[in-house]
Formats: sequence, C-alpha cells, structure tokens
Amino acid sequence: MKLQQIIRENHLGLLFQQGNFGLEKESQRVDMNGNIVTTPHPAVFGNRSYHPYIQSDFAESQLELITPPNAKLEDSFRWLSAIHEVVLRSLPDDEYIYPLSMPAGLPPEEQIQEAQFDNPDDVKYREYLSKTYGKYKQMVSGIHYNFQLSPEFVEKAFAAQTEYATHKEFQNALYMKLANNFLRYQWILLYLLAASPTVESQYFCGKSPLAAGQFVRSLRSSRYGYVNSPEVVVNHDSLQSYVESLEAQVVEGLLIAEKEFYSNVRLRGGKKARDLLENGVKYAEFRLFDLNPFAPYGIELSDAKFIHTFLLGMLWLEETSGQKEVEIGKQRLYQVAMEDPRSETAFRAEGETVLNQILAMLETLGSSEENRDLVREKLAQLADPNQTIGGRLIQAIEQFGSDKAVGAKFAQTYKAQAFERFYALSAFDNMELSTQALFFDLIQQGISTELLDENDQFLALKFGEHLEYVKNGNMTSHDQYISPLIMENKVVTKKVLAKAGFNVPKSVEFTTLEEAVAHYPLFEGKAVVIKPKSTNYGLGITIFQQAVKNREDFAKAVEIAFREDKEVMVEDYLVGTEYRFFVLGDETLAVLLRVPANVVGDGVHCVKELVDLKNADPLRGDGSRSPLKKIALGEIEQLQLKEQGLTVDSVPEKGQTVQLRANSNISTGGDSIDMTDQMHESYKQIAVGIAHAMGAKVCGVDLIIPDLTKPAEPHLNSWGVIEANFNPMMMMHIFPYQGKSRRLTKAVIKMLFPELDN
Amino acid sequence: MKLQQIIRENHLGLLFQQGNFGLEKESQRVDMNGNIVTTPHPAVFGNRSYHPYIQSDFAESQLELITPPNAKLEDSFRWLSAIHEVVLRSLPDDEYIYPLSMPAGLPPEEQIQEAQFDNPDDVKYREYLSKTYGKYKQMVSGIHYNFQLSPEFVEKAFAAQTEYATHKEFQNALYMKLANNFLRYQWILLYLLAASPTVESQYFCGKSPLAAGQFVRSLRSSRYGYVNSPEVVVNHDSLQSYVESLEAQVVEGLLIAEKEFYSNVRLRGGKKARDLLENGVKYAEFRLFDLNPFAPYGIELSDAKFIHTFLLGMLWLEETSGQKEVEIGKQRLYQVAMEDPRSETAFRAEGETVLNQILAMLETLGSSEENRDLVREKLAQLADPNQTIGGRLIQAIEQFGSDKAVGAKFAQTYKAQAFERFYALSAFDNMELSTQALFFDLIQQGISTELLDENDQFLALKFGEHLEYVKNGNMTSHDQYISPLIMENKVVTKKVLAKAGFNVPKSVEFTTLEEAVAHYPLFEGKAVVIKPKSTNYGLGITIFQQAVKNREDFAKAVEIAFREDKEVMVEDYLVGTEYRFFVLGDETLAVLLRVPANVVGDGVHCVKELVDLKNADPLRGDGSRSPLKKIALGEIEQLQLKEQGLTVDSVPEKGQTVQLRANSNISTGGDSIDMTDQMHESYKQIAVGIAHAMGAKVCGVDLIIPDLTKPAEPHLNSWGVIEANFNPMMMMHIFPYQGKSRRLTKAVIKMLFPELDN
Repeated sequence: MKLQQIIRENHLGLLFQQGNFGLEKESQRVDMNGNIVTTPHPAVFGNRSYHPYIQSDFAESQLELITPPNAKLEDSFRWLSAIHEVVLRSLPDDEYIYPLSMPAGLPPEEQIQEAQFDNPDDVKYREYLSKTYGKYKQMVSGIHYNFQLSPEFVEKAFAAQTEYATHKEFQNALYMKLANNFLRYQWILLYLLAASPTVESQYFCGKSPLAAGQFVRSLRSSRYGYVNSPEVVVNHDSLQSYVESLEAQVVEGLLIAEKEFYSNVRLRGGKKARDLLENGVKYAEFRLFDLNPFAPYGIELSDAKFIHTFLLGMLWLEETSGQKEVEIGKQRLYQVAMEDPRSETAFRAEGETVLNQILAMLETLGSSEENRDLVREKLAQLADPNQTIGGRLIQAIEQFGSDKAVGAKFAQTYKAQAFERFYALSAFDNMELSTQALFFDLIQQGISTELLDENDQFLALKFGEHLEYVKNGNMTSHDQYISPLIMENKVVTKKVLAKAGFNVPKSVEFTTLEEAVAHYPLFEGKAVVIKPKSTNYGLGITIFQQAVKNREDFAKAVEIAFREDKEVMVEDYLVGTEYRFFVLGDETLAVLLRVPANVVGDGVHCVKELVDLKNADPLRGDGSRSPLKKIALGEIEQLQLKEQGLTVDSVPEKGQTVQLRANSNISTGGDSIDMTDQMHESYKQIAVGIAHAMGAKVCGVDLIIPDLTKPAEPHLNSWGVIEANFNPMMMMHIFPYQGKSRRLTKAVIKMLFPELDN
Repeated sequence: MKLQQIIRENHLGLLFQQGNFGLEKESQRVDMNGNIVTTPHPAVFGNRSYHPYIQSDFAESQLELITPPNAKLEDSFRWLSAIHEVVLRSLPDDEYIYPLSMPAGLPPEEQIQEAQFDNPDDVKYREYLSKTYGKYKQMVSGIHYNFQLSPEFVEKAFAAQTEYATHKEFQNALYMKLANNFLRYQWILLYLLAASPTVESQYFCGKSPLAAGQFVRSLRSSRYGYVNSPEVVVNHDSLQSYVESLEAQVVEGLLIAEKEFYSNVRLRGGKKARDLLENGVKYAEFRLFDLNPFAPYGIELSDAKFIHTFLLGMLWLEETSGQKEVEIGKQRLYQVAMEDPRSETAFRAEGETVLNQILAMLETLGSSEENRDLVREKLAQLADPNQTIGGRLIQAIEQFGSDKAVGAKFAQTYKAQAFERFYALSAFDNMELSTQALFFDLIQQGISTELLDENDQFLALKFGEHLEYVKNGNMTSHDQYISPLIMENKVVTKKVLAKAGFNVPKSVEFTTLEEAVAHYPLFEGKAVVIKPKSTNYGLGITIFQQAVKNREDFAKAVEIAFREDKEVMVEDYLVGTEYRFFVLGDETLAVLLRVPANVVGDGVHCVKELVDLKNADPLRGDGSRSPLKKIALGEIEQLQLKEQGLTVDSVPEKGQTVQLRANSNISTGGDSIDMTDQMHESYKQIAVGIAHAMGAKVCGVDLIIPDLTKPAEPHLNSWGVIEANFNPMMMMHIFPYQGKSRRLTKAVIKMLFPELDN
C-alpha cells in the first residue's frame, strides 16, 4: 500500500489528518483514603441499559465514562470534562474517582459486586470473568481511545489507488495496517505514557512478582495485567485470518466469547468479528493506555493528540506488519512494561527511529508546529525517563509515601476542582448557564445530546427513537409558535389576557406625543406607568407611583417612552410587589422575588467592605458566566447611597439594609430570593392559567401582588398581570441568592421525555 | 340630569366624547341597470346563521353589511370599506350594490324571495312581514348607526351625581334622554342627510302619493316608508313606560313581536325590552339614515362624525324630552320628509338654534376645530338646501334622467373602484398584503376577526367559541416554537434535515478566515457556495459555479461572507433550478419559480419602453403594497444590459429575452411563475417531508431540481434542499406574474378552523 505516495500526489494531507475521536475511561469509585467502595452504582445516573455516557464496567464500583465521537479531539476532551463534572458533583459526598489504573484498597473479593446490568447475560459474563481471572484483575482501569479515519479521506485515497478492487477491501487493509503496526510499536507509547508501576500485594492472590520497592512501567500492560492465557493466539496476517483464528478460539473453548480476546487494538464494525469482513472495519479501538493521575480526567489532551499523530505514523510507515511483527511487538511490550520507569528503555534506538519518521511525516503533511513540538517532546523523554508520566509518578509516590496516598490525594483535589464553579460545565462555558444546567442533567440522566450549534444554544436530544430539539434551555416543540409572538408584544399580551378574563391594568396606546398629551385629562390624578410598547429592558419607562399631577411631567414621560418605540402605552399603576412565576405545563415550579442590589450592615464593616464580602459569594460574577452579578459601586450606586446620607465608607448599623440600586434587576447586582413555598397556592394557579391562555407550556409570568399570603381575589387590588415572558430565565431559580434551589432543567427534560421514569 | 355641570366640574369632557361605534348598512343587489336581482344570497359568503359581517336582511337580494363596534368611527369606516371590497369582489360579474335607499327596478312581488335563513322562525317572520306590509316596503334600505357612551364616562359621571341611586338607573336615564331628544330633533338630521326623494310608482301598490316630477326629502322616513300602523303607540316618558307599553302592543296583537316596532331609535341591551330594565341599556341604535349615493359605502365619515356630535348634543341639552316632545318630533319628521329637497325647511329656526347649542357645547368641551367646522357646514346647509345630500341628488337625477340611472351609474363606478387594487384591502393597506388577503377571506367566510395589533399584523380569530391567533398571515398555534428557531439557523437546519435523511449539500463551518483558508485544499477544484451562517437576504454569498481554482479567490469570498456573520459555511454547489414549495400540513399547495427581472422584445419597443409596459401591470408597484415590484432601470440593470451589448434604448428582437438582473428576487423586479401543476408529485412529497422533519405545519421549502418533470431519486444529482423558511411569503403564490393563483390564505383558515365546511 503506497499510502505516502497517494497522499502526496492527490493533496490528501489535510484529509488524512482528519478523523473522529472517542474516549472511554474506566475508574474506581473510592472513599477519601482511596479504598474502593462497595456501594451500588449511583441511582442518580439512571439506567445502565441505555446510558450513553455513564456506565459501569466490570464491578459496581467501576465507572466507565464515555464520550461520543467528535471530529476534534478538543471536543472529546470537553465532553470528558463535562461528564467528569457531572459524575463528581453527583457522587455521594464521601465518594471520589480514583485516578490510578491499578486499584489500591481492594475490598475482600466477596464484597466486590459484578455490575448489575438489566440484561442477565451481561451479569453472567462478568461472573464468568470473576471465576476465570479472579475479581481483582478485573478491577484494573484504563483509557480506550477510538479512532476513525475521515471517511472522505478513505474514499478519495481509494479512488486514487489500483491495488484494491473495492472500497471495503481498501478500508479494511488500511485499518489492518494501522492495527498491526500499532501492535508492533505500541511499546513506544507504553514507555511514554505508562502509569501503573505497582499494586498492593493481595492483587496477585499469592506472592507478588515484584521485589519490595520495585517499580515497573506498567503492571497493567504486563503479563500480570489483563491478559488472555498464552494458548490464545489470533493471527494478524490478514483480516480474514484474524477473524477466522478468533472464531476458532471460541469454537475450541479457549475463549467464552470473541469479546474475551484482550488485545490492545480492537477493530470495530459490527457485533461479531465476521461482520468486519462483511461490512468493513468502521473504526479502531486502542486499549493500551493507563490512567494518567496527573490529568484530572485520566489523559492529557496533548497526549491524546500525540497518540493521533502516532496512529497516523503507523499508517504512514512503508511496511505493514504481519503476525510475526505483531508477536515481536507484543514481546517488546511485555519487556518494556516490566522496566523500571526511571531507567532507559532497551529499545530506545528503535523508538527514536520511529518518532523521527513521524516527525518527517508531519513535515511532509505540512502539519502544525504544535504537533511537531509534541513529537520532539516525546523524543526528549526517550532520552530522559524521568520526564515520562511513569517517571514523574514514582517521584510523587516517594513524596506521598504510597501509590494509594497519591491516588487519594489527587482524587480529593479533582473532586474539589469540579465544585469550584458548581453551577457551570467548565468545558462548555461558552454556552448560556441555563443550557449548561440542562446539559448537566442530560448527561446525568443519559439522554443522548448533540450540540447542533453551541453559539445558538441549540441541542438535539435523543432517547431511543424519540428526538427533541431544545434552544436556550427551554424553547422546544412543546410551545406553540404563536405564544412567544404574543408575549413579545405587550399590547397583544394584555388583550389576550383580558379576553381570557385575567386582571390586566387598563392601558391606552398612542402613536404620537400630541395624541397622548391631548388625552392627558384621562390620566390626571391617577397613578400610571408610561412605557414603550415593545422594549423589554426597562428602558423608557416612567412610573407615577402616586399620581401624575401636571401635563408637563406627563408629556416628558411620554416623550422618553417614544424614544424607545413608535407606540407608547399609558397604563394604570398597580400597587404591590412583583414576583416571577416559572410555569411549566400545569404547574408553577418556582416563584422568585427580585430585590434591588443591597448590603446589610454588621456595625463593623463599611459599605465598600460589605459589598466586597457579598461579592465573594461564588454565585456572583459577571452575571453571564455566573448566576448572580457582583454589585458595582459606580455612579448610580453612589448616588443611591447619597440619597440615604451615606458614602462607600459609611459603616451601617447592624441589621441596617443599605439600598444600592432602585431597580431590582439581577443584572445590576440584585438578589434573587426563592418564594415558592411562601406564595399562596391561588396565585400559582393563576400563573398557570395565564400561561395556558397564551398557549405557552413554559412561561415566566410576572404578577404584582400586595400580599402573597392572602388568597387571590378576582380584582386588580388583589393581583394583576403586566406581562408574560417566553424562554424565561432558569438560573435565578436554580441558584437563588436565598431560598431553595428549583432544578427547572430537570422538569424540562421530564416534559420532553415523559417516558423517562427516574 | 345636570349633565353639563357634571362634565364641566369633573373634567369629563374628553371621556364624554369617547364611545363605541358600529354601522349596519342595508342595500340591494342589482344588475348593471339597477334592477334588483332574484339570485340567491351568494354561497361564497358562507352561512348567514353565524356570519358577523355579511348578512341578508329581508330579502335574498338585500345585503346587510355590519361592522364590529370600534372606539373610533374611522375604524368602523375602515371595516365598512373592507366589507364592501370583499362583497363587491365576490359578487357575480353582473351584480352590483345599489347605492340608493329606495329600490328601483323592483321585480314582480312573487319573484322576491324572503331571506332563507337556517332558522325557520327567521323565514316565517319575514313571510309575516310580506303579508302585513307588502314585500316592496321591506325592500327599502338604510344605514343603522350604533352608539355606546364610554362606559368609563358613565361610571365617572354616575359617581359625580346624586340624582340616581344606582349605576344602572343613571345609565338608563342617560340613554332615555339621548333617545327622546333624538326623536324630538331628528328632523334636523333628516333635512341634512335625507336621500330618498322618489321611487317608482309600483312601490306604492296603487296610486303614487307623489305628483309627477315631485321630489321629497325622504320617502323612507315619511309615512310611506317603513312605519307601523298608526295604532301602535309606545310611551317614551320613562324606560319603564317604554318597556311596558311596548309589551302591551305585542300582547294586544298590534305587533307580532317587539322587533316589529319600527322606531328611529332602538335601545339595546338584551333580546327583549324587559332585559333593558333588568340589565340596563348597553347602547342605542339609530335607524334614521338614508343611503347616501355619493358615498361609496352609503355614508360619509364626516357625516358619521357629525351624527356623533349631534348625539352628544342631544345629551348635552338641558331638557329631557318626554312622550309629548317625542310626538312633536315625529310630526316634524314626517313634515320635513315630504318637503322638496331644494326648498328651505319649515323649522329652520329651530334647527339653527339646536346646531348653535351644539357648537357652543363643542367649544365648552374643547373639541377639535374639525368637529366645529362640520357643525358650521351643516348650519350653512340649513340656509342653502341645495348643499344637502338631497339637494345634490336631485341635481344628479336631473342630469342622468332618473334615480335608477343615478343608482346604476354609481353602482358600476363603486364596483370598478373596488377592483382597482384587487389584491389589497384599501382601508387596511397599512398591514402586509398577506394579512390583507387573509383578512379578506376571513370577512368573506364570516370568521370574527379582531385586529389586535395592525403594525404587528396580529389578528385574533373567533368562530363560535374557537379562538385562534395569527401573526403575519400564517404564524399560528399550529407550528411548534422550535420549528422557526431551527429554520432561522442554516447550520442547524442542515443537520436536522441530514439526520432525517434528506439530500443536503455537504458543508463545513468556519469561525475565522485563517481556519477557512487553511482548509482550502478540501475545496480546491470543487463547485462551492460560500455564505454567512445566518443572514437571509443573499448578502455575502459567493458562488463558484464551476470550481474554486485558487486560494486567493477562495479567501476573498470567505472574507466577504465574514462581513455578514461570525460563522461562515462552505457548501457544495448544487446544479439545478431553485423552486419554492409552499407546504401546509401534509400538502404542497403551491410551487413557484422566481425569474430575474427581464423584458421580452417585440421588435418595436426599446428596452425602456418594454420596462414601462411591463411595469404597467397593476400587480407591480413598490413591492410592499403590491404583489410584484416595478422593474427599475438603475445602475445594476444598466450594467446587466451592457454585458449583453444593449442599452435602455436598444430595440430587442421579437421574442428575445433581455435580462435586467442576475438575481431572481421578486423584490428587484423578478417574475413569479406558478409551477404547481408542472412539478412532479415526488418533489412535492419531499417538500412535505422536509416540513415535517422540522415540526413545521406551514413552511416554504427551497429545492434545487435539475429536471422538474423526472421523478425524484434519492441522491443530490436529482434534488437537494438548502434551506426552509418559516412564515413563507404567500402573495407571490396568490398573485403570480404567470400561472394559476393559489389562494393560500383560504388554506390557512381551513387549517385553523377545520370545522368550517365551506
């Protein structure tokens, strides 16, 4: 296969470097000391029979975290980060994720529970493994790396060659070359990335093969790892011989099933090996990799990129390894696995040759400087074993006293990190917080999620064959198109609500200043609100809370409103407090009070210090990447202080509330206070009715209520509605400043997928 | 009742001048010569048992057109205009609306069919009228004017007085005063507005009371009009006596029902007179008015405004007329009705006194100069009878030869006027044409329509208890909220369509110029379209129809696209013609081809003249108030001509098509060509599937198809979809440049109201 020539002559270099990438990461749930826990797989993660992201592997304690395939490795890492944050924040307080491949703190074997899948065959298979290999060996964890060549590359390269008659044969040959060359040279990756130097002695169920204090590069990839018995031999000379010999092992009873064949490469493309011959290889799974304890998610992005480059190198090589070379590779792997991580490897020269060939490939392909630097770094590590992950891990073990101590320490650190911005998904912080919260719940509950457009907050959700789309956290197929259009228009909203019998303050609309002023006698002496018809952010609104008393004030307010819109409304002013009702379907799920930015004195600190103290709340930030906004001390706030006879240096008395703003917007530092339980049920029902009247399933209803404890009466003195909001904010309810959190995103999922019963 | 004082002291002048106004107009359907037709009420107007706007009155030939109540008389007139345009455009080609109150060209009595309502009682009542009064008398037509005082005025005035104990009593007293004073002074309005000076002799079923060539002011309001027998006397001294005496007439058999009592004022508030006592008077109906033949809709707005002022004057008068005064008023009415329209009236002095009192009232109220001028004009008409409508009508009759000739001539003129802009509703031309077309169909079919917000094209529709909202002609509750959000985003649209298995051209998105250019090798030698992700008007799009051949051209195109959006797509170019499919539900209702602005030569005219000729099409205008846009001859068009070696003065050969634009937009003078019947059915089904995949009920799907006659095949060479549009334009299908009109608005109504079976 003259791949180099085909790529060069057909300018396929860019396509050759494209592909799809997926990661699977096993790891043990442990206690704070690194002991494996014997609790069942957490119920919060839904059902393993379908969960696409959070599974259990061999044992109940052994998590398997899976990213979907992505065209960019960066995206797979963002997924890995998000899944980890979901898992770490969902685990019981006293559980952690162990960051090392080799388990420490193994419980007595009988306490290890095989993963309890719904399908009895899945459980039986694990019980067979327990009997055959012992449970401890099954507790080892690692990273699986899935790689698919760009289908367009395969197509174009096939078109440019003559050796293979069919696309399938060509594609299979490509993947066989990749697999075999990988198996031949995998020891290089092991040398660089290995991180399982030791294990507690009980793991061996007898005498440990390691001398006291002996460290190796990778127990996991050694003969003491997760390997088949030596009689199991699968022939790699061709895909045909590979499939046939694998099938023969099963027929002969050496393997209970094809999947019991443990190879560091698995060719994927069907349920059975024979499917590969019939349908072609779709992608390859590389299972060599130990967990990297220095990486919060078990592998560094730079290493994943290097692995990709290495895989391309395996395809780029002139030769294609056969069974003989694969056997050589296996022996070298075993040998390197048992080397001391601090020592040079026996095969350094071969390693350097291969890496230099890869470097030359990158230059031919015109690949990025970053990729080439990665290879150069690894070349340096061939010369200096202490720079390898294994080398660094030995130093850490020596520092902390044991591998278990290292594991426990890092496990705690990574869990704490996952809570730093507990309201966000760090890797998806480019999206709105509400979409992040929804995405968190989707990952947790196991709804397949595709990010159709991150900038646009557009997700596609799938559960079985049931497909739903969501935009901005709660815009879905469940609302009617006309509903948001009604809500966008205050005049129409009021007409629709009045028509449906809800208490709406009377208002008159005007299209010219003259017309409005000519109608001044209608409003003289009344408390009124003057506002533009359609703007939403409080711009251009004047409130005459007592009463409008002269024509000039009235005219001025109308003029201000006309700056924002071509139509202006003069509306009766309603007395009372404004509450936001979050309605979903037939229920008000949350009620919120928004309070203008303020601090409460303690008799000790000055206003400036009180603001700093309040701003230290992790919920407060810039207001877009945080649920609440830090209080500013700008002109407006200082003016507000001045009106109260205060400055930023005044020390308010204990308990004294100091207003820093007149408006209650969260976006200007206001507090969000959950009032769901305090609000009289009757108002919640009214809010639901209002949402229904507009044909809305999800709706933010703003009611003015003088006394939230008294039952609603059917007149404007008891309550009134001014407007309703589509796509209502959820974060202020999920993470309020005070009061109970209302996880509205879960309710959105339940609305979309009522068939989900957890 | 000290109403003047109450209004003055409580600043209620503005509220006093507010109210609600509705108009009902009877008229006969006639042939081009003014003969009443004997055809049934047109089926196109749906069912009379519910139609709110288009009814029949006594006879099948007698239309009754009804406006809903409006707070502004101007709006009632806009409705009256719209209803007339609907009726005139829906009538058979050879039918017209007769503009005079007194019928001419009466058919033999036996050919006059009583209106065939669904309810047998309605028909029986008309048969009773035929027997009692003769059919001819029932054929007289007029205008009914409904007026309601502002409820807020009544409330405030009630609060400010002490004479009446309850709001209802006060309100009833107000309306009684209005009714009685009106009946006392109605002769003034008759003098000014009367327009039934003569009638053909057979109307009288015997000897005509008119001498040869005699004209009177109003036969309709005379003893020869539509009056009860002299024995019928209802007492107007109080509401109580009014109700009781009316009931007594029915009990005594002088009237078959309360509604048989013909008064020029009817108090409204329930089905029976007694309801008025129990529930209070809601509004008053004034039935005095002859059709004004000089007004296309039977009454001029200025006269309607004057009537309102006159009614306010009746309330403003210090005295309240009782039965005695009402009788005086009735006698004066009869006397004035029989005066010669060209002569002064016997009661001129009283008329001037009343009108001067009204003028003084307007000054006290600070009413507009316009209103005062109207009264001054009428005062002048008291001095000069030739200025009255009646006076002017006599001149017209003398000019044309007969009242029938006047009626026939004006009927033809008004019908022709209604067709001038046949695609619009003149009075609602501030709304989009598609909303006008929908509104037209709603009026025609009798769906109650409320214009919630005209600027926002927001309608509320009601049929029985079934309420629907529509914005911009086809945005309704039937579409899901998420659908337009999907369609708004080209990337998401393509992903959703690809997921559902539709042919979508491959594309790659980039967020930086550098990134896109680095991927240039992926596109070299391919035909591609480079476009911004989300703009819609063709801005920033570059098409490499053959193939992109160098990096610089590619980079330039990407840069242009980035000017319009933060994300840019590079998409495979599809070969073929673009067609717009209008999908509603499970059906493609229309297919349209848009052709760039062009003219076809005739060997005689030059390009400039050909453009003028093409622009003369009434469909062409500014493109917003007309379905098509006039072709311009600006820089772009002249450049396009130059490329063809032509100028605006060139004379193209017969049959030669001259391109004036490269783009096919209707908004730049393009032609719309209906291709619904030519398009192979398979593509129509694909378009429906695409709409379904996005959850859309109404959707404009753009397909690229190389050959519309061949059945669709499942690959991109056969067809491809680039985008789908929510709220698709309807006018280009309803009024295409070429091909069959597709009345999509009717389909929207059918979708919203499937229970409508016509």
